[in-house]
Amino acid sequence: MKDKVNAGIIGASGYTGGELMRLLLNHPHVNLEMATSRKLAGQNVSKKHAHLAGLTDLEFEELDPVAVRQRCDVVFLAVPHGSAMDIVPQLIGSGLRIVDLSADYRLGVDEFEKVYGTKHHDPRKAVFGLVELHPEVKGETFVANPGCYPTGATLAAAPVVNAGLADIAVFDSKSGITGAGVNPSQASHYPNMAENIQPYKLTTHRHQAEIWQELNGLGGLDSVNFTPHVIPAIRGILTTAHLFLKEECSEEDIRQLYDSFYSDCPFVRLVDDIPALGNVRGSNFCDIGFEIDANSNRLVVISAIDNLVKGASGQAIQNMNLMCGFRETDGLWNAGLAP
Amino acid sequence: MKDKVNAGIIGASGYTGGELMRLLLNHPHVNLEMATSRKLAGQNVSKKHAHLAGLTDLEFEELDPVAVRQRCDVVFLAVPHGSAMDIVPQLIGSGLRIVDLSADYRLGVDEFEKVYGTKHHDPRKAVFGLVELHPEVKGETFVANPGCYPTGATLAAAPVVNAGLADIAVFDSKSGITGAGVNPSQASHYPNMAENIQPYKLTTHRHQAEIWQELNGLGGLDSVNFTPHVIPAIRGILTTAHLFLKEECSEEDIRQLYDSFYSDCPFVRLVDDIPALGNVRGSNFCDIGFEIDANSNRLVVISAIDNLVKGASGQAIQNMNLMCGFRETDGLWNAGLAP
Amino acid sequence: MKDKVNAGIIGASGYTGGELMRLLLNHPHVNLEMATSRKLAGQNVSKKHAHLAGLTDLEFEELDPVAVRQRCDVVFLAVPHGSAMDIVPQLIGSGLRIVDLSADYRLGVDEFEKVYGTKHHDPRKAVFGLVELHPEVKGETFVANPGCYPTGATLAAAPVVNAGLADIAVFDSKSGITGAGVNPSQASHYPNMAENIQPYKLTTHRHQAEIWQELNGLGGLDSVNFTPHVIPAIRGILTTAHLFLKEECSEEDIRQLYDSFYSDCPFVRLVDDIPALGNVRGSNFCDIGFEIDANSNRLVVISAIDNLVKGASGQAIQNMNLMCGFRETDGLWNAGLAP
Amino acid sequence: MKDKVNAGIIGASGYTGGELMRLLLNHPHVNLEMATSRKLAGQNVSKKHAHLAGLTDLEFEELDPVAVRQRCDVVFLAVPHGSAMDIVPQLIGSGLRIVDLSADYRLGVDEFEKVYGTKHHDPRKAVFGLVELHPEVKGETFVANPGCYPTGATLAAAPVVNAGLADIAVFDSKSGITGAGVNPSQASHYPNMAENIQPYKLTTHRHQAEIWQELNGLGGLDSVNFTPHVIPAIRGILTTAHLFLKEECSEEDIRQLYDSFYSDCPFVRLVDDIPALGNVRGSNFCDIGFEIDANSNRLVVISAIDNLVKGASGQAIQNMNLMCGFRETDGLWNAGLAP
Repeated sequence: MKDKVNAGIIGASGYTGGELMRLLLNHPHVNLEMATSRKLAGQNVSKKHAHLAGLTDLEFEELDPVAVRQRCDVVFLAVPHGSAMDIVPQLIGSGLRIVDLSADYRLGVDEFEKVYGTKHHDPRKAVFGLVELHPEVKGETFVANPGCYPTGATLAAAPVVNAGLADIAVFDSKSGITGAGVNPSQASHYPNMAENIQPYKLTTHRHQAEIWQELNGLGGLDSVNFTPHVIPAIRGILTTAHLFLKEECSEEDIRQLYDSFYSDCPFVRLVDDIPALGNVRGSNFCDIGFEIDANSNRLVVISAIDNLVKGASGQAIQNMNLMCGFRETDGLWNAGLAP
Repeated sequence: MKDKVNAGIIGASGYTGGELMRLLLNHPHVNLEMATSRKLAGQNVSKKHAHLAGLTDLEFEELDPVAVRQRCDVVFLAVPHGSAMDIVPQLIGSGLRIVDLSADYRLGVDEFEKVYGTKHHDPRKAVFGLVELHPEVKGETFVANPGCYPTGATLAAAPVVNAGLADIAVFDSKSGITGAGVNPSQASHYPNMAENIQPYKLTTHRHQAEIWQELNGLGGLDSVNFTPHVIPAIRGILTTAHLFLKEECSEEDIRQLYDSFYSDCPFVRLVDDIPALGNVRGSNFCDIGFEIDANSNRLVVISAIDNLVKGASGQAIQNMNLMCGFRETDGLWNAGLAP
Repeated sequence: MKDKVNAGIIGASGYTGGELMRLLLNHPHVNLEMATSRKLAGQNVSKKHAHLAGLTDLEFEELDPVAVRQRCDVVFLAVPHGSAMDIVPQLIGSGLRIVDLSADYRLGVDEFEKVYGTKHHDPRKAVFGLVELHPEVKGETFVANPGCYPTGATLAAAPVVNAGLADIAVFDSKSGITGAGVNPSQASHYPNMAENIQPYKLTTHRHQAEIWQELNGLGGLDSVNFTPHVIPAIRGILTTAHLFLKEECSEEDIRQLYDSFYSDCPFVRLVDDIPALGNVRGSNFCDIGFEIDANSNRLVVISAIDNLVKGASGQAIQNMNLMCGFRETDGLWNAGLAP
Repeated sequence: MKDKVNAGIIGASGYTGGELMRLLLNHPHVNLEMATSRKLAGQNVSKKHAHLAGLTDLEFEELDPVAVRQRCDVVFLAVPHGSAMDIVPQLIGSGLRIVDLSADYRLGVDEFEKVYGTKHHDPRKAVFGLVELHPEVKGETFVANPGCYPTGATLAAAPVVNAGLADIAVFDSKSGITGAGVNPSQASHYPNMAENIQPYKLTTHRHQAEIWQELNGLGGLDSVNFTPHVIPAIRGILTTAHLFLKEECSEEDIRQLYDSFYSDCPFVRLVDDIPALGNVRGSNFCDIGFEIDANSNRLVVISAIDNLVKGASGQAIQNMNLMCGFRETDGLWNAGLAP
């Protein structure tokens, strides 16, 4: 691939769009060529994303698939679920690299229709872009970027599931409120969110299907359980994975298992202490720590990611890097904003 | 008992002491007679607890057990774990009502020594003051006030455990940082706590012993698991109880079970929506909501309390009310401070 | 007046309505008779205000002025600005006590029309219900409850202005976000509000007219300046009043001035340390502290109130108490929820 | 200067040290050669600064001035006030570039002794490293990095003061709590800081001397007033500058004044809307917005910076860039972490 690719973002007015731009503007191999938004076409990007002022003069455009194919080498779809499946068919096939941040191509068509309760128009299957589990992303042209919760939950449990050691998993996940998007709602209303932690969709969140799919691909579990919460934090997902083991394991066994499983994964950091969201804030890292409860043969694994970076836009760029032949860490090798 | 009792607080300089005073100053049957603090003796109480300015002229005193027995009808111990066992023997037996907010008398002596790693000097056993499970508090003179986490966790699971329906319980609890006390630490340092949720003692928190004891008293479970987190909130504990059921139950079954179990418990509110900490903030209520995960026969129960009220000082007053023959709700029948 | 009055709340679905109910339900001389809401008529009050569950079975009603006059002794209007002037004329004159929490009757008609840019239908003037400056509230039947910012700012400066000591005042006020109401907006969106302090209407906030009016009534200043900010807090207004003095004063002079001015005001507490919002949270107190900058003859006064209590609903009840012949502190004599 | 300089950090265990490392590790012309800490010598840097894990293997060292002079081309002092004056004389003169982040060399010796109440051992004067006012930093070898508050306040007022337009300035500043450092205190204790805004040192903060010095250098004002507050935010300083103008000015006049004054300053962004801390979080930008109060000839200017970046470590690197002949923006040209 050439040294510098032209990148476009379709649906760039929201948080993941803003985050893609923040990161791509500093990427050594990317020229940010295009950002589309139906509502904001014609406006300067930094009018909406004021943190980008001075760094770019880009203006939002209307989406024009022909222009995308002509001007871009790689394109990110940051559109709502259900929209990507209308756009992808107009883009695919021309050599353009596509990273879809929506849910449309993460599950099989049948599973998608069951979980999202809506018809799928496009039977195409993308590679699931959790690079740590899917190195086959390298060289691909169409990747479905994982959901935020599935990223944190799957990375927390993958080594143990892959080793066939666990039978029950309870993922108790806590997300910053940006996961709910840029539009104000009762959930994101400060007086409701501050001084609170709000569980929601206790047993019915759609991301469970992704977690199930990915862990199943590693051998599976008898029971995969997922309950999400929003916390008074802008960014971050901390997942407390309660993994019931079939047999006794030492902490040393587990450490070796994780070390080995993630030995080629620059963004997964196995930490000695318990992960904290501040250490990954704004970065593409996933920090993992754990402890064993000998009484009940329970392994408690904590994973921490930034939901907008490793849980969305950063991971999308990580995918792009591999798809385009760049180094996996290009443009992403920065520390978290701690404190 | 007389219409108005004289109350004392031993160790009144911390959060639970301040909270006891805030509540007792508005109690129709209580005269706040005494507040002790070694460090602050001689100082006006409102110098330390500035929110009480104008409401009381009380001064901190040195602890003098003789004075306590002479001047008080009821006394609250808000001292560190390990101190209460030195004080209680000097107070007990004179008709004085004692509510101990420390951990010293919550567990049997053997269990205490095992869990707290320290010798117990006083073999006496108190009634465990979780009124909803221990109505025998009524008329007692010595009560051990439950820990904050055990209050929320036990109330979340008790009806199901009492009915023998569950075999595994995972309590994933989230507490406001006041649970860590009035003294600054790295855990309570704003830059560490804000925009974070911090798991700690993933498998070894001492409150698990209380949860186990109380659920065991109701029939028990195969496996009781507890992992605490601190959240960026001043007050409140939200517990997500993942309860694996032995058999399928309908939501209607569960609702009836909880309604019936808590029918005489004014402070437990079964809510239709998911509990939120704001609704119980500053109040003695425990709000409970739930949902069933049909896939895995998992019942997710959410309980919300204010850790300093129902989880400490309010519950202590609820105990006092029953010990002294007042109405259970006297001085505590106020709404949460929402928003 | 009778020992127990029937109270109604018109427009009870918002924050000030909820707060009125929270407080009135514990008022020894009040029966909460009625709460109206166009949108929620027929619904249980605790469906909307979940913190009131168990404490009241009241249902929202449609507003019916005849019913209000028949069933209520006192009524609170918690309706948007511009609505009260349509309702008040239908209620007034029957002996009913009216406390209007909207802005409609706080200013003279001309000033109102200038500041709010809308026609006023009702030339009637109410007493301005800042009790500390307007003891004539006592016995009145129609009172305009002050705005939240004017309450904190005016109380901070009144003694100095009354003594004719200052010529320039800069009120730099910081408010919790509940001041913006119950409906989500970009301003109250957690990702915008958290980790931020947001100035707004830097020079044009409408509350300046109330501050000016009240300070003018005390003798006035050459220049009254006001800039509001929202802070990442649910409740509370902290005002930093920079008051430039015409002559040198000692801290002792100022202390005596404030002590004397507020000697009959139970809810104003002159504090030695710098006020903190936690000490007044949920209470009707206004805490005031100060320091003199000898270099520039600047007196810095800090006032702290809870915007929903002393800044709205609590102050309305304080007015009601005086209008109905109750003690000023009835139902309001509780400590702030600190921490 | 060579293309890549070796940089050292003396006193690297605190927030500004961590921030220097976060930024320097991504600087195209810097090799991070050394980080000293008395307490942590021998420990891996990422043990203390966990967000740097994976990005550096550096270990803390004891401070050895000889080694600093031999191994470093540029050194940053991130030590407490009063310590730098003992270290600088051991380093200076060897061609080593020194950026001192302490207060020791920001004021003249007399002023320093008056303000800090401590004897100064070293009469040397550094250039005051507010690049926007002191382009003479270019080519210097010893620079005193400005305080955080003075950076935001001075940049807010400089164009107006330089034009001789104002006579009174009131700087009402609001800082994130990291300004108080890495060690827990009552001020940084979460239950005290959350849901609060805490004024402190109402009239006596030592940073006022720097503001005065810098504005005086531009022509001065009759009266410079400064009152700081801490807000519930990790990072950021928002300053509300109330500037009383001697004559009427239009918004267009002011806009041209600021545009012109900052025309060569890449990190100062004049914004149309009111600045928000999120837009500068983690970045070296200073966002400035304003509004005129025609009634009182008051100009309200809002400036927003990240206290740890433009207010400390980022500005230090900006100074380094100019001292070493790099581009002013090298290593600092990244967007704020919004949201």
